[in-house]
Amino acid sequence: MRAYDREDLLFQLFDVAGVEEIIAGTELDADAVRGILDTADQIATDHYLPHAHEIDENEPVFDNGRAILPDAVKPAVDAFIEGGFLAGPFRPEHGGLGLPETVHQAASFVFSASNVSIKGYAMLTIGAGRLIQSFGTEDQKTRYLEPMVEGRYFGTMCLSEPQAGSSLSDITTKAEPMEDGRYRISGRKMWISAGEHELSENIVHMVLAKIPGGPPGVKGISLFIVPKIRLDGTRNDVTLAGLNHKMGYRGTTNCALNFGEQGDCIGELVGEPHQGLRYMFQMMNEARIGVGMGATALGQAGFQASLAYARDRPQGRSPVAKDPASPQVPLIGHADIRRLLLAQKAAVEPALALALYCAVLVDRHRAGDADALTLLDVLTPVAKSWPSEFCLEANKHAIQVLGGAGYTRDYPVERHYRDNRLNPIHEGTHGIQGMDLLGRKVMMQNGAGFTALTGAIRADITGAGHPLGDPLSAAVDRLEEVTRSLTAQVLADPERGLANATLYLDLTGHVIMGWMWLRIARAAAEKAGREGDSDFLKGKQQAARYFYARELSRTEGWARTLLANDASAFEMQAGWF
Amino acid sequence: MRAYDREDLLFQLFDVAGVEEIIAGTELDADAVRGILDTADQIATDHYLPHAHEIDENEPVFDNGRAILPDAVKPAVDAFIEGGFLAGPFRPEHGGLGLPETVHQAASFVFSASNVSIKGYAMLTIGAGRLIQSFGTEDQKTRYLEPMVEGRYFGTMCLSEPQAGSSLSDITTKAEPMEDGRYRISGRKMWISAGEHELSENIVHMVLAKIPGGPPGVKGISLFIVPKIRLDGTRNDVTLAGLNHKMGYRGTTNCALNFGEQGDCIGELVGEPHQGLRYMFQMMNEARIGVGMGATALGQAGFQASLAYARDRPQGRSPVAKDPASPQVPLIGHADIRRLLLAQKAAVEPALALALYCAVLVDRHRAGDADALTLLDVLTPVAKSWPSEFCLEANKHAIQVLGGAGYTRDYPVERHYRDNRLNPIHEGTHGIQGMDLLGRKVMMQNGAGFTALTGAIRADITGAGHPLGDPLSAAVDRLEEVTRSLTAQVLADPERGLANATLYLDLTGHVIMGWMWLRIARAAAEKAGREGDSDFLKGKQQAARYFYARELSRTEGWARTLLANDASAFEMQAGWF
Repeated sequence: MRAYDREDLLFQLFDVAGVEEIIAGTELDADAVRGILDTADQIATDHYLPHAHEIDENEPVFDNGRAILPDAVKPAVDAFIEGGFLAGPFRPEHGGLGLPETVHQAASFVFSASNVSIKGYAMLTIGAGRLIQSFGTEDQKTRYLEPMVEGRYFGTMCLSEPQAGSSLSDITTKAEPMEDGRYRISGRKMWISAGEHELSENIVHMVLAKIPGGPPGVKGISLFIVPKIRLDGTRNDVTLAGLNHKMGYRGTTNCALNFGEQGDCIGELVGEPHQGLRYMFQMMNEARIGVGMGATALGQAGFQASLAYARDRPQGRSPVAKDPASPQVPLIGHADIRRLLLAQKAAVEPALALALYCAVLVDRHRAGDADALTLLDVLTPVAKSWPSEFCLEANKHAIQVLGGAGYTRDYPVERHYRDNRLNPIHEGTHGIQGMDLLGRKVMMQNGAGFTALTGAIRADITGAGHPLGDPLSAAVDRLEEVTRSLTAQVLADPERGLANATLYLDLTGHVIMGWMWLRIARAAAEKAGREGDSDFLKGKQQAARYFYARELSRTEGWARTLLANDASAFEMQAGWF
Repeated sequence: MRAYDREDLLFQLFDVAGVEEIIAGTELDADAVRGILDTADQIATDHYLPHAHEIDENEPVFDNGRAILPDAVKPAVDAFIEGGFLAGPFRPEHGGLGLPETVHQAASFVFSASNVSIKGYAMLTIGAGRLIQSFGTEDQKTRYLEPMVEGRYFGTMCLSEPQAGSSLSDITTKAEPMEDGRYRISGRKMWISAGEHELSENIVHMVLAKIPGGPPGVKGISLFIVPKIRLDGTRNDVTLAGLNHKMGYRGTTNCALNFGEQGDCIGELVGEPHQGLRYMFQMMNEARIGVGMGATALGQAGFQASLAYARDRPQGRSPVAKDPASPQVPLIGHADIRRLLLAQKAAVEPALALALYCAVLVDRHRAGDADALTLLDVLTPVAKSWPSEFCLEANKHAIQVLGGAGYTRDYPVERHYRDNRLNPIHEGTHGIQGMDLLGRKVMMQNGAGFTALTGAIRADITGAGHPLGDPLSAAVDRLEEVTRSLTAQVLADPERGLANATLYLDLTGHVIMGWMWLRIARAAAEKAGREGDSDFLKGKQQAARYFYARELSRTEGWARTLLANDASAFEMQAGWF
């Protein structure tokens, strides 16, 4: 059995996201896209899914500065590289395949659903490589990026430090200029995913550090390439101080790294000094969409596992079946089990739609559409955080469908739940995404991002002619009212105005997911019109109805709390707890 | 550091639950109650809390039919017995201490917060022992109950079977009468907590089985005592088939047991034939309140751990602090972190209030108050399920406060989250509690239970004279309207009427927790009047305000969905997923 619903992925990609518009004029056609997903499916089936349990149960071991991984990781990573999925998203001039982001993300979904821990190594490498692709010199691209695209070097992002988790302003890692133009790096980095392993010849660490004498805070942060092995073949002074023991994502090493303990860690500056945060944010925005996609994939994996169980497992009878000798019905025959399944479907499918919609915006932006970037900017915090919160909730429901069995490690659903708990934390916590949305994205360019968002939603409402358009329209009106109220308060008193930013994020997220359901329902109606209705398409309409009845309906209560800008948490004093 | 807030526990016990009314006329006085809690605190500090991590990391090992536990379990269990906590809730005539349920539950909270896995062994033994105390013969009490009260024998509940989890109607374990009046037991039982270990001389399994020729379904279930070691010292034919590997609660063995594989498993009937389910339900109702208390304790443990971290850990600055050289503020200085803490407090404290309120009702019922039982019956599904759902949510928030650190096994919060995920599943799932509330408890005796509930809430609203009384009163009105609407539908069409029972459970639970907050806020106001206001008491008022603004406000949306009796999940077809 697959960890994802292939029919849904193809429907979403072709009928909802409209990938054919994106590939028009490229070398790809629809069959080629399906072929790429077939290859991803095959590799995931052979190398990813079968080892997910084993990798979870055997976390990497710290052995005298080395990280020893379970045997199954390397063949899976090699097959991924061999299949062209690492080279996929990079530009052809550096050896990449130049795949559209939309297709790359659809393939990523397949791997993440099947084994998110193994997927992590490639995800980090792609993020690191793209930084060099965007901001490195040609020479750096030749020396570092090209071996990354080939899969010979892997990459990492080194941002956090033990004393500065979310607060990058407070990092203290130092980069002292050497006479030859390179830099001597010293400091400690924390929470470095894929920070050490022996899957590749080399690991290219992208490190944030401060050049002495630069501006204080985030304005003094620069970005450096710090390879594990220097290109002359000698070992750089980067050491694995320890591995973090996590509740989930156990197959991806997460490391404490020491740079320059012996005073001999050499790095190269990327781009201009003191521009590191800006560069990193480009990567970060891509990483955030990737986190959302990963969270969605885990939600989908739990949904598929619990759906299969619910169809298969006989358990009890309907409340009206009085004869205890009548056969038991499958779990799915119970209304409350269908609710638990529908709640998962209602969360996972629009989350996938949004991730693909964001990927389409990336492709449009690359094709020269400047407006696409404005909309993408405002969607990014939601694309990261909504699935991290609500597909985690879906994973909780998946366990509930299986009952006691779901609580054991014999079934994958508890693992999904543990894995997904990371996603509201890394690449900017849920709270930080809220601040980003309300304090930055919604306010920027005089509200151009927010206007682009409501404009896009309204255009789809008008275009769809679907009965869900009316409640969605009312929800958008209300979101606008809340946004006007809160942004005025942010300007007047930022601390008070931003106090409920997380709730604002959830409100905006639910409205956007209502929009995604409208897009899915419209696509389903159109497909039914073309090809006749089907169980698959009926399921989309029913799940959309469920989302509007049970989830979009929550937005009114949140809007009221936000319009009152409830101060109960803001005014709570530390000493009162 | 404690895993619970001792000041709050004493406040709840004395000022909110009013334990002094319960102990009036007994041998106990307030100092004695505090002394019992001091002893619990000392044992929990010495033997429970220090081993919680170690026990989680080293789950029991199956070794040729034996279950090998980590070394730390036995001394902790022994200290618990030595301290009188196993004998505590039993009647003096069987060697018990006859502690009021209210005091027993308060002590339980201390142990569960400190190490819920070790606590499990005693909890099961108390449940099993009480079954014999209520329904066994004098001879059975002498032979089985008394050694249990002494802590020489432990107990279990054997209900579920591999083919029948929640559906007890479908159990197939057989009990064939022998000539001497005993029964020959054969069958397989699943999910048996504490089903095998070597902590005690013997294990007394309370087994549900069917006597051939009896009525079909639940009406043909009888209850048996099946000891691991027969009282003549020979081994009974009960074998450990395997241990379940769980995501949490790892320190409590959870077993598959085979009864009578060799045809030589002997049991004794408890009470009358075919009355087993009724007997078991007495235990089950106590166990359900115990589950709620355990879920609350885990919520409290996470709250305390995240509160300590938030006070201690410097991280970032306020949105208005522009100087990056200014010192970082503690996490608790951020409004969104206070929200995450307040959300935990707002869930954990009324859940504790409800568990103690239920214990008070048990004590009143024992003292001859028949009305107490009616109210207890209707509260039981909420007391079990609300903390299981919403204190689990609190555990999620605790991880979020710690960020990446919270995701590692170096801190206890991820363990609490894994442990607590069991509670919505065992002793009747969340969905089953909903059916129990709407389909049985609210309807029974012409609605007497529900009338008792709304009557008790209204009496407190009137008595409190607190500003929260008005919104609570409105919520109760709405709950009555929803209840009238749904119960009429249940009578007309049970399947359709019960389809949203889980949401009804959540609605009722939130109204009840609003009531508990009113009781806490009233007690805090009274104490402030007597002794002067304090930070501790201000915190109660603020958390109550938070609950009303953020949580009680959710009930209106749920009420609307229930009044419409939304059919989106009910009408979803299995083939449409």
